[in-house]
Amino acid sequence: MTVKKTKKRQNETLHLLPIGVIRSALHTRSKAPKQGYEGAPDAWLEINAFAEQCLDGLKAGSNIIVITWLDRARRDVFKVHPRSDPNRPLTGVFATRSPDRPNPLGLHRVTIRTIVKNRLRIGPIEATDGTPVVDIKPVLSVQPDF
Amino acid sequence: MTVKKTKKRQNETLHLLPIGVIRSALHTRSKAPKQGYEGAPDAWLEINAFAEQCLDGLKAGSNIIVITWLDRARRDVFKVHPRSDPNRPLTGVFATRSPDRPNPLGLHRVTIRTIVKNRLRIGPIEATDGTPVVDIKPVLSVQPDF
Repeated sequence: MTVKKTKKRQNETLHLLPIGVIRSALHTRSKAPKQGYEGAPDAWLEINAFAEQCLDGLKAGSNIIVITWLDRARRDVFKVHPRSDPNRPLTGVFATRSPDRPNPLGLHRVTIRTIVKNRLRIGPIEATDGTPVVDIKPVLSVQPDF
Repeated sequence: MTVKKTKKRQNETLHLLPIGVIRSALHTRSKAPKQGYEGAPDAWLEINAFAEQCLDGLKAGSNIIVITWLDRARRDVFKVHPRSDPNRPLTGVFATRSPDRPNPLGLHRVTIRTIVKNRLRIGPIEATDGTPVVDIKPVLSVQPDF
């Protein structure tokens, strides 16, 4: 019975609800840096009304991890040339930060510049305009490398 | 037209497919440490067949970020007492690492101990047995704090 339940859980589809969206001057993937620290701009993160109260306690100057849904990515790509460099051998996407992967989640460590009602100015961030956001987590001060 | 498309995207449900599952000696949330570095054990991460090729390039000794789906969490909780301490004021879940949140994604920075076919021995990790895994990313050496 337990085995059955676990098997079922292992393969069922999980449902994410966007909690906000990125508003950025970056509009195309080809113009976006691969990582935020590679010259990406700041952007706005607009939080959907239902999730606004989840922001209580966040402050300008804090470092957070924003989890996005990279909706322009391909989900049927399992190996890539790292950094899109054809001279590098094909590598499994779990060993790379390629946006193309079975579940195109993006991790972005950013600083909160300011908070205006339901909008957070954050950066630097390489996500393009319109990218859905699915979670925000604080960087843990007791474990600064996460 | 663009606005319409973006609005639609902002509110549509997104679908995650588990790429694997945690096999751990931890069976209940109450017995699990809150964070991996708080005395959590190592565990196995079993990768589903369709995603096995995504592992190519991962090696024992590497540090990775495992993203889980905390399926025992509550999604209708928007504020919590941090660290479950009633003396701490109610705080929005985006300012905490509470598993209870609109999209219960878990971030776990772990070391790969060994890889045996489609199974990775990883740790330390506080996720309980049967927890679905939705993504694996390498820790970026150029940005060691992520």
